[in-house]
Amino acid sequence: MRMMDYSNCYPEDPHAVNFAGQRGFLKVLKSGFKETLFPDDPFREIKKEEKPLFRAIKWLQYLVPIFQWLPTYTWRLFISDFFAGITATSIAVPQAISYAKLADLHPIIGLYTCFVPPIVYAIFGSSRHLSVGPIASASLLISQTISTVVRPEEDPILYLHLVLTTTFVAGLFQTCLGFLRLGILVDLLSHSTITGFMGGAAVMLTLQQLKGIFGLKHFAHKTGVTTVLKSIWTYRHEIRWETTVMGLFFLAYLQFTKHQRNRNRKLFWLSAMAPMTTVIVGAVFTYLVNGKRHGIQTVGHLSRGINPLTIKYLKFDSKYLAPVLRAGFITGILSMAEGIAIGRSFAVVENTPHDGNKEMIAFGLMNMCGSVTSCYLTTGPFSKTAVNYIAGCKTAMSNLVQAFLVALTLEFLAPLFGYTPLVVLSAIIISAVLGFLNYAEVVHLYKVDKFDFIICMAGFFGVIFVALDIGLMISVGLSILRALLYVARPDSCKLGKLPDLGCYRDTDQYTVSTLPGILIVQLGSPMYFANSNYVKERIMRYIRCEEDTTGITVEQIILDLSGVTSIDTTSLEGLWETNKTIENNGMQLSFVNPRIEVLEKMVAAKFVSRVGKESFFLTVEDAVKASQIALRKSRASNSEDGVRGTTIHQSAVDSC
Amino acid sequence: MRMMDYSNCYPEDPHAVNFAGQRGFLKVLKSGFKETLFPDDPFREIKKEEKPLFRAIKWLQYLVPIFQWLPTYTWRLFISDFFAGITATSIAVPQAISYAKLADLHPIIGLYTCFVPPIVYAIFGSSRHLSVGPIASASLLISQTISTVVRPEEDPILYLHLVLTTTFVAGLFQTCLGFLRLGILVDLLSHSTITGFMGGAAVMLTLQQLKGIFGLKHFAHKTGVTTVLKSIWTYRHEIRWETTVMGLFFLAYLQFTKHQRNRNRKLFWLSAMAPMTTVIVGAVFTYLVNGKRHGIQTVGHLSRGINPLTIKYLKFDSKYLAPVLRAGFITGILSMAEGIAIGRSFAVVENTPHDGNKEMIAFGLMNMCGSVTSCYLTTGPFSKTAVNYIAGCKTAMSNLVQAFLVALTLEFLAPLFGYTPLVVLSAIIISAVLGFLNYAEVVHLYKVDKFDFIICMAGFFGVIFVALDIGLMISVGLSILRALLYVARPDSCKLGKLPDLGCYRDTDQYTVSTLPGILIVQLGSPMYFANSNYVKERIMRYIRCEEDTTGITVEQIILDLSGVTSIDTTSLEGLWETNKTIENNGMQLSFVNPRIEVLEKMVAAKFVSRVGKESFFLTVEDAVKASQIALRKSRASNSEDGVRGTTIHQSAVDSC
Repeated sequence: MRMMDYSNCYPEDPHAVNFAGQRGFLKVLKSGFKETLFPDDPFREIKKEEKPLFRAIKWLQYLVPIFQWLPTYTWRLFISDFFAGITATSIAVPQAISYAKLADLHPIIGLYTCFVPPIVYAIFGSSRHLSVGPIASASLLISQTISTVVRPEEDPILYLHLVLTTTFVAGLFQTCLGFLRLGILVDLLSHSTITGFMGGAAVMLTLQQLKGIFGLKHFAHKTGVTTVLKSIWTYRHEIRWETTVMGLFFLAYLQFTKHQRNRNRKLFWLSAMAPMTTVIVGAVFTYLVNGKRHGIQTVGHLSRGINPLTIKYLKFDSKYLAPVLRAGFITGILSMAEGIAIGRSFAVVENTPHDGNKEMIAFGLMNMCGSVTSCYLTTGPFSKTAVNYIAGCKTAMSNLVQAFLVALTLEFLAPLFGYTPLVVLSAIIISAVLGFLNYAEVVHLYKVDKFDFIICMAGFFGVIFVALDIGLMISVGLSILRALLYVARPDSCKLGKLPDLGCYRDTDQYTVSTLPGILIVQLGSPMYFANSNYVKERIMRYIRCEEDTTGITVEQIILDLSGVTSIDTTSLEGLWETNKTIENNGMQLSFVNPRIEVLEKMVAAKFVSRVGKESFFLTVEDAVKASQIALRKSRASNSEDGVRGTTIHQSAVDSC
Repeated sequence: MRMMDYSNCYPEDPHAVNFAGQRGFLKVLKSGFKETLFPDDPFREIKKEEKPLFRAIKWLQYLVPIFQWLPTYTWRLFISDFFAGITATSIAVPQAISYAKLADLHPIIGLYTCFVPPIVYAIFGSSRHLSVGPIASASLLISQTISTVVRPEEDPILYLHLVLTTTFVAGLFQTCLGFLRLGILVDLLSHSTITGFMGGAAVMLTLQQLKGIFGLKHFAHKTGVTTVLKSIWTYRHEIRWETTVMGLFFLAYLQFTKHQRNRNRKLFWLSAMAPMTTVIVGAVFTYLVNGKRHGIQTVGHLSRGINPLTIKYLKFDSKYLAPVLRAGFITGILSMAEGIAIGRSFAVVENTPHDGNKEMIAFGLMNMCGSVTSCYLTTGPFSKTAVNYIAGCKTAMSNLVQAFLVALTLEFLAPLFGYTPLVVLSAIIISAVLGFLNYAEVVHLYKVDKFDFIICMAGFFGVIFVALDIGLMISVGLSILRALLYVARPDSCKLGKLPDLGCYRDTDQYTVSTLPGILIVQLGSPMYFANSNYVKERIMRYIRCEEDTTGITVEQIILDLSGVTSIDTTSLEGLWETNKTIENNGMQLSFVNPRIEVLEKMVAAKFVSRVGKESFFLTVEDAVKASQIALRKSRASNSEDGVRGTTIHQSAVDSC
């Protein structure tokens, strides 16, 4: 078959490789663009619609998802959403106050943050179950970054303004990414990175909250395990046993209710109501025993009224711009990644719609709107969303219910929350973040993929010993390095024939038979400048290894390109060099089943014409047959002992 | 077949996937380590040797390649090498003086640089044909970077010391990379990057040499097309017609000899001798016409004697460390990449040994030794190596011949070269670099791969309009971005059956038949956190697209994993989500031929046990048969019209 000229008999010969010319440049460009930015084909419904009016409606529904579900909204759905909204609010209010304290903001900012963003999200969000609000890790990250420029206790007004500006920047950034469909950036945060980062953040947050539990008045300004522990040791004389006992009691209560929920899902309301219960019990208790005398600090005055406008406070002063941009970028990505991952996981379970790019736009809009109405960074936190989901939420309406209830709270009940003891807030934060310590996942990573485990641990220790953002960046950096290593060292394998099925499989994986003198190698993908030399070295090593093992000279080498999805010019040149080296050593190289993109480039680069069309085969079987014929000829002419027909059964373990 | 439980009948069933457990961690680590750093298995010869003494000899031969070829060296080989060495020297001397001027160094440094490094390379280098010396682009790059700290005309001594230190740093860096076997870094410079960078450098160098051609006394200190052109315009009154005419004449002569060589390879000596001829003719002519009176500047005094030691001049002052490290790093990589690429291309042609990692060590040692003996950065320049090769060089002995001849020149003839007119040097440089403008390659890149073309152009324009190093970095950055994009968007395709052969191929590439209700998708590689979502979206789009095109509900989806070389935990989770979504929509997912590494992780992550072993098949054909049975059952139970046995022949162009 090798000797046959396909160019004459094509396309009649069913064994011929299709060498049809290149697809047009514009077509390839369009397809590449679509795969890169629009892999989910988001406009398919709109494109199908032919009438302009309906098309406009579909566009509106696409851009503003509330128009998708509101027209068919029923009273029954509302009942579900209403109760889910109430439950979510009961966890939202204490969490919001706690996280605002975490971000070194006045607690009322936390309450404000639970009013405007849920409304915006209900309109633009594509997830049905997400309940939006601030998250602990982003709160700490903002405070860490902004306090390098201005300390919150020195200039709380400027600090607040910078936090609002950071929120705006994060929102703008999220919206832009959404419109540019660059969800690909969010994909950079792998499971392993998030597990490690969240674990590290949980440890840091717990350590920081020891301040509240112990009732300390002084504390380290910086994070980092050693700094915080040293600080506790330095101020150990300030420790009040009253707050410590109270804190540990509430923490135990919160953890107990969580435990109950995990054992019996019907008891979820117990844990959902627990934060609010601790706040109320804590406040009443502190009031009754005159807590101040015992060193129990409270939140302090909270004034009534809903969110004041803060648009005039956004500060784009060049003096503060760098840290604001940095914080906005990192917290924007981080919170988006968390919110999208959580929304997606519930959407998968319930088979409801979820669109990552729309979520980005929704998050961005809610943060931009939030930043001009006294709110700081929000996303979809896991705990609240889970409670919302378990409580029976059906649509984003539950966010509207939450917003309405928080508005009522702000208007009438805000001053009452001023009596909340700080120790209660610390207990709530610790209880919330302890769940981030996902031992099971770490063990899973260790078992399944050691490199993922390393990425996870790098994030964890980076966060604990250096800083939140540095830890995150180290972990992401390692992930990218690994992606590059994959490209640099694509896996290849030697193939042999499965005796019963007649197809070719990895000699390491299956008990297969190989033919002496013929070597079949399956190459990995993509073939690329970064691995062009490697692939060459690897092929030469397969040849040497085969000769060393069998003691028979390899004369025919068959490269199975089925799995090679793309190739570049450097790699084509490398393949040409390989071909030359192999021919110089008196061997012959054939290629099997190059895919459309690879073959196009091979044709364009004149690789096919230089190598000869007769070296290309559609199946490994065809190539092997041609090689056998060539082998027989060469051995006959070398007056050797003819083709050795015996096949060697490889063991499952290859020595090279 | 789907309903069959393989766990019972394995391994007798030849159709069964081999679910054998994970390979040991250490084994996987060792294999990964070997593939990453030792893909060429460099110690194979040594490992084969059993006697300690012979083993020691093999080690010595491995580490110091001269011991490989010297014991079998013959008189005949020496004759070849001797004449090649003479020819290479005749081009080396004028080039060395020119490039030293280019690096703003005293011309004698150029001559020194042709003495020590060739000796070191002859001992440690693995290439047979490389002739070492300075190169134009690295010379310009060094001068650009170091002159940001200290101007050569203000403090030539300090400038020289910093250049020597840069050489040392580059050498140290190259040696380390070689010992750490990190040739992977050199692979980052793709063909396209080098083509673009060299083209840009050629334009910059030519523009700069206009100073010499026009005989200008003042000139721009910075590079960049606009700056240089403006500078020529500003000092246009300094242009001397005498030098201009002389320069153009010599340039025409040099180009003519090159042209002759390209037409007839036997005339290579014409072009090999041309630089030396221009130097001699130029010097004699200038002397005869009393050139100084006509504004023809000469090199100036050159003192006799071989390289003075400069070890005490290496300056690791923190004030200059940053630019020195930067210049050392970039020029180190650049010169290594050029030297290795050139050595490899001749090794491929002649089928002689060449080892990238050994070359790095040899380059590193020669630069470190050079830096303490008054030499600046060297590598294997293309022009000299080509002349050396064409002149019949057989081993690295030709480098020793060159070193000996240069030593003689230094000892006796150096002062004579002081009469060389600068305009001759400019003509030599321009003639050398004009060859870097590789139009054919650029056209080739444009035709074969548009992205490679963009990478090339980015390097070219970056070099021309910004700076040499920035241009290089932009180009490399784009290459890496593309590598990441490949990982983020691996190519997948829909498969159909080739009627005559019974194997499954891309529907876009071949005329194949598909079964209604069954969708077969071949996934690209690797599957990874960065593409986990994409792969999911893409599979769902294939399903929708299939349903839209055929109008028949898809019930069975078959994923061909043959080409997937690796998978990580995030992607496994994504595949699990895909499986869940597909099941939620009443469809079934099967997997075909997962490769050893992928299957190991699937087993370890309990993916196989959650999905069920009955969903894994060894061949697409097996999976299709099982799907057909399942389809028949489901349609019978749905009391539909049974399985539609008709197959649809796809056109070569798919609509989705």
